[in-house]
Amino acid sequence: MIKAGIIGATGYAGQMLNWILLKHPSAEVVFLNAHSNAGVKYEEIYNNYIGFSDFTTVSLAEAEEMLSEINVLFISLPHGKSFEIAQKAVGLGVKVIDLGADYRLKDVEEYESWYGVKHENKPLLDEAVYGLVELNRQFIRDARIVGNPGCYPTASILALAPLLSEGLIDTKSIIIDAKSGVSGAGRNASVQNLFCEVNESVKAYGIGSHRHTPEIEQMLNSIAGEEFNISFTPHLIPMNRGILATCYAGVKKPVTQQDIDSLFKDFYCDSSFVKYINIPPETRNVKGTNLCHIYAKLDSRTGRIVVVSAIDNLIKGAAGQAVQCMNLMFGLQEDTGLNLVAVVP
Amino acid sequence: MIKAGIIGATGYAGQMLNWILLKHPSAEVVFLNAHSNAGVKYEEIYNNYIGFSDFTTVSLAEAEEMLSEINVLFISLPHGKSFEIAQKAVGLGVKVIDLGADYRLKDVEEYESWYGVKHENKPLLDEAVYGLVELNRQFIRDARIVGNPGCYPTASILALAPLLSEGLIDTKSIIIDAKSGVSGAGRNASVQNLFCEVNESVKAYGIGSHRHTPEIEQMLNSIAGEEFNISFTPHLIPMNRGILATCYAGVKKPVTQQDIDSLFKDFYCDSSFVKYINIPPETRNVKGTNLCHIYAKLDSRTGRIVVVSAIDNLIKGAAGQAVQCMNLMFGLQEDTGLNLVAVVP
Amino acid sequence: MIKAGIIGATGYAGQMLNWILLKHPSAEVVFLNAHSNAGVKYEEIYNNYIGFSDFTTVSLAEAEEMLSEINVLFISLPHGKSFEIAQKAVGLGVKVIDLGADYRLKDVEEYESWYGVKHENKPLLDEAVYGLVELNRQFIRDARIVGNPGCYPTASILALAPLLSEGLIDTKSIIIDAKSGVSGAGRNASVQNLFCEVNESVKAYGIGSHRHTPEIEQMLNSIAGEEFNISFTPHLIPMNRGILATCYAGVKKPVTQQDIDSLFKDFYCDSSFVKYINIPPETRNVKGTNLCHIYAKLDSRTGRIVVVSAIDNLIKGAAGQAVQCMNLMFGLQEDTGLNLVAVVP
Amino acid sequence: MIKAGIIGATGYAGQMLNWILLKHPSAEVVFLNAHSNAGVKYEEIYNNYIGFSDFTTVSLAEAEEMLSEINVLFISLPHGKSFEIAQKAVGLGVKVIDLGADYRLKDVEEYESWYGVKHENKPLLDEAVYGLVELNRQFIRDARIVGNPGCYPTASILALAPLLSEGLIDTKSIIIDAKSGVSGAGRNASVQNLFCEVNESVKAYGIGSHRHTPEIEQMLNSIAGEEFNISFTPHLIPMNRGILATCYAGVKKPVTQQDIDSLFKDFYCDSSFVKYINIPPETRNVKGTNLCHIYAKLDSRTGRIVVVSAIDNLIKGAAGQAVQCMNLMFGLQEDTGLNLVAVVP
Repeated sequence: MIKAGIIGATGYAGQMLNWILLKHPSAEVVFLNAHSNAGVKYEEIYNNYIGFSDFTTVSLAEAEEMLSEINVLFISLPHGKSFEIAQKAVGLGVKVIDLGADYRLKDVEEYESWYGVKHENKPLLDEAVYGLVELNRQFIRDARIVGNPGCYPTASILALAPLLSEGLIDTKSIIIDAKSGVSGAGRNASVQNLFCEVNESVKAYGIGSHRHTPEIEQMLNSIAGEEFNISFTPHLIPMNRGILATCYAGVKKPVTQQDIDSLFKDFYCDSSFVKYINIPPETRNVKGTNLCHIYAKLDSRTGRIVVVSAIDNLIKGAAGQAVQCMNLMFGLQEDTGLNLVAVVP
Repeated sequence: MIKAGIIGATGYAGQMLNWILLKHPSAEVVFLNAHSNAGVKYEEIYNNYIGFSDFTTVSLAEAEEMLSEINVLFISLPHGKSFEIAQKAVGLGVKVIDLGADYRLKDVEEYESWYGVKHENKPLLDEAVYGLVELNRQFIRDARIVGNPGCYPTASILALAPLLSEGLIDTKSIIIDAKSGVSGAGRNASVQNLFCEVNESVKAYGIGSHRHTPEIEQMLNSIAGEEFNISFTPHLIPMNRGILATCYAGVKKPVTQQDIDSLFKDFYCDSSFVKYINIPPETRNVKGTNLCHIYAKLDSRTGRIVVVSAIDNLIKGAAGQAVQCMNLMFGLQEDTGLNLVAVVP
Repeated sequence: MIKAGIIGATGYAGQMLNWILLKHPSAEVVFLNAHSNAGVKYEEIYNNYIGFSDFTTVSLAEAEEMLSEINVLFISLPHGKSFEIAQKAVGLGVKVIDLGADYRLKDVEEYESWYGVKHENKPLLDEAVYGLVELNRQFIRDARIVGNPGCYPTASILALAPLLSEGLIDTKSIIIDAKSGVSGAGRNASVQNLFCEVNESVKAYGIGSHRHTPEIEQMLNSIAGEEFNISFTPHLIPMNRGILATCYAGVKKPVTQQDIDSLFKDFYCDSSFVKYINIPPETRNVKGTNLCHIYAKLDSRTGRIVVVSAIDNLIKGAAGQAVQCMNLMFGLQEDTGLNLVAVVP
Repeated sequence: MIKAGIIGATGYAGQMLNWILLKHPSAEVVFLNAHSNAGVKYEEIYNNYIGFSDFTTVSLAEAEEMLSEINVLFISLPHGKSFEIAQKAVGLGVKVIDLGADYRLKDVEEYESWYGVKHENKPLLDEAVYGLVELNRQFIRDARIVGNPGCYPTASILALAPLLSEGLIDTKSIIIDAKSGVSGAGRNASVQNLFCEVNESVKAYGIGSHRHTPEIEQMLNSIAGEEFNISFTPHLIPMNRGILATCYAGVKKPVTQQDIDSLFKDFYCDSSFVKYINIPPETRNVKGTNLCHIYAKLDSRTGRIVVVSAIDNLIKGAAGQAVQCMNLMFGLQEDTGLNLVAVVP
């Protein structure tokens, strides 16, 4: 049985980790850390756990004391907050999966420029593996520390990787227009995420400046083997969960719809969570699951391919992918505890 | 392995049956029946099953041919439509669980008066057991046919049963004000359930005339051992799933909050799906589960007890309860395949 | 031209005041007061005003300086915060309409007990008129200070007043089950009103203890001419605006549906905002208006009348009613600037 | 007083026409036509009109009889249905504003190819003016028949027109990613627009094949003075109303953010409904209004300009723009009866 600790277990992503691990056949939670709520029974913070979880949340200091009891530490904190605890855990031989942004960008300067904080553990960053399983499976298996991908990057990279790997698209032409449910903004008190401020409206935000941009570029550049920038625009949608990424790219070589279909199917033939489908995906069909639905359409009129991908931002875009990484790191089958079908409607 | 067939598998309740049985360790679906969609791949009707279900839906005639291959038949049809298929199944020794209204009301005249159709199988009705497990466990085990409770009755009866069983409340004073998500209205094309007609609004409907009224009364009368009518008002809430029943009753004998708390806890001590909690329930905390959260508050100012119960109308109020019945009918542990925790947010 | 000032203009109710007054033919806003946002352009706080409002919000101190420039002061502050500014305004001959709770309950002890603060201006409270126009029209005209009704009381009292005025119902039997959109909770940063905490769920709150209870009772007692308590249970609904009050009461004398219909129509024949309709109301049909839709149904089976009323909590339940009061206080026609039809869908 | 008739008054757009004209100081409705609901009181179809409208809907035959009583005819029918009634009206000297698609595309072959029906009135099409007021003001004034723009084209063209008129962007690079509320799909019974099918989800549809594509291209080509295709992808958002168009285009000449800001402000300096703002627009801030909020951002990293525009699809995208056209056609000030501020929240 893998023993796991969760730092930041009262945020939405941390809570989903707990939810998944509760049913995981080969892992169990040892502690749930909270910040302002430390010392409160978990089922009082999230009433859906009433009768299912006896945990009382622990402070960071208490969590550190318990590092020796666990095999894997999930960290779900705001960026810049994970350096110390991650180092301690790794030092004790505990595998670390960081759901925040601190171990994703390999270029420290880029990290510091986009996030506005100093990176305090470059050696660990150097060794960290980017946890996008479908593309990095072999490196994740042996990693001591994984930088779990952001939600937008997960949806975006999975949508574009096959096309880039084949050199089918003009890298300079890539535009990603993404739509996210509100849970992506976290569970902090704020006026702008109040029900009445979000409901019955849609908006773009962070145009040209969202922090997931360099993360997407790092991976796409690596796949394509060249440097380029992309346009990335996130939007806020009045729903709890889900990300839909609509990706546009100009075609570089002659290609048919059938070629594209084959390419995607082949590319993901060993990735059971990625389903290449023949109609535009809806986020509700992957909600509550670790799935990514992808659809690609060649638009001959404009010479572009439009790829649409859908994930649950809190599962494949956060907690589910983290457990997928854990499974690999501990030699389990990749989908252990993650074999979920969306609850519709 | 229990072999199951589902009649009406493309409605919301029928689909949830399929969802639950897909993960059930001791049961498996043999056929999925559809009406207008017969012959269509199930994953094309519900895209969340892409990659998880190879079924093609079958017509009613085809389903009848396959009755001999199954052990249990779930029927999820509009009222008045189940008589023939239910009889055939029972005749072949197949256990029947009817999610519609045809085997709930024991008084045929009442059935015919509230539903406006003739009941065509009184003998089977006589033998049918009302499938509210927490109150009818012992009878369900041996039933050949179960009338699975309606969604509103499930929430309402579970809320009031303990108080009535102890004779604590004035039976003439009972008022049930219930709130339901839109999935209760089913998946039929209709203007009144369009997104734009329901969203950003709330309304009452069927005031004093909803068909679940006699079903609630039948059970409450039986528990109390006397005849009485109740006021029941359903409301439509702009959300997909969930029922909240707010129940009011005048206190008949001196009682304290502590007495009430003890009563509910004791009454449901062997019913793992019913959680008596100490704050007003929210439907989201039982969404996607077979749970019923109940909270009771003594209001000394008015001499009333207010009981609030929350269920997922499609699970504890339909498909989940049906599987709970199946488990009992086949000697399984009651919660087999139903050990679900709500996905929040 | 009536010159108006608004204290607390950045809350939802204060903002609706501004919205209504912007189009009012005989009134205009002189200042908009904000607390934490003082000094910010109003159109930056509420972007819907871009191009329509040049105001920069002022601090309370600045607002006080400008009292001499206005004829009417609207106060939209949390309870316990209006005493000083209201006194100053009245002292200067400025009419005051308080949208908070400080001038509603005539019994100071009751106020202090339910609100947990000391009332600091009993003389002004004594003279204050309860601003429920349909019932207090004649007193409002000459008032120097009006306590504008709460949202739940407005919907509840309008629903029950005709029945009580005729002595048709058993006063001890009254139950009000109310459903409100989230804007009733105001625009303060809080976890519990985040989109993801409210969406796709419904809950009761303040069972037996909501502060609008004594306000409803004060008015209903006054109409009936006797003392009694009522049961009042508010619920939170995942929508921005609207209140639906479902009211239950036992019939005391023989009455027909026709009697009830006539009673309501007659009672409100001079009240153009109250529409007695023949189907259960939906909140969307009064959204964005000062209307109250009412429907009453005699349920002979149970000997109860069920009355359902619908209002927009921020207009008839707050800002609209306040302007309705202002119109009377300044000799205008009651519906001036309030002749609004709901925008559907 | 302008006398108006509305064909198709029970659809969402037709209803909004009625709503606007109800308050219009210089126009009044003479008849409201319905199809399946002909002969029903309008306030029974839309309960928000209770007390505000005495109209009973008339059949098409009855409407034709009344053409001689009106000055302007609004037609809000599915494409291919307006030919006959439009011709009759024009023949009688009645100005026609068609909210459908039959008089928008000047190229008949393109119309027939995208819409799959034969165009039956080419002469009238030839003379029809495209009713996008901000760009076609001078032609609309004298038109006998106006093809009122589609909702997506309105948002998209207003966003891109200034950049194209200055030749600032690479016409081949234009991508429009649009998000619409559900009311755009109309008020017809359909499973796919049921609340439970749309709520808590987002999807793209009509990728590369939506019928608004040639309409957008026709106008953008005309502004740019060259032929080119664009990529247009609509998305369905779980909200009633609103369109957000996120438009991407590569910069062709050196330009600064300040240049862009000046360009938009100048371009729309005489168009009071278009507000160029300095933060990304939210659809809620234009909901219920005839406004278009536009924001443009130069992204130097990628050499692209991102323009985001927001409208209410039923007002500026349909009924409001139609009335704006009517105002011009009858010599009124353009914003008569349309001076609306969004009701927030």
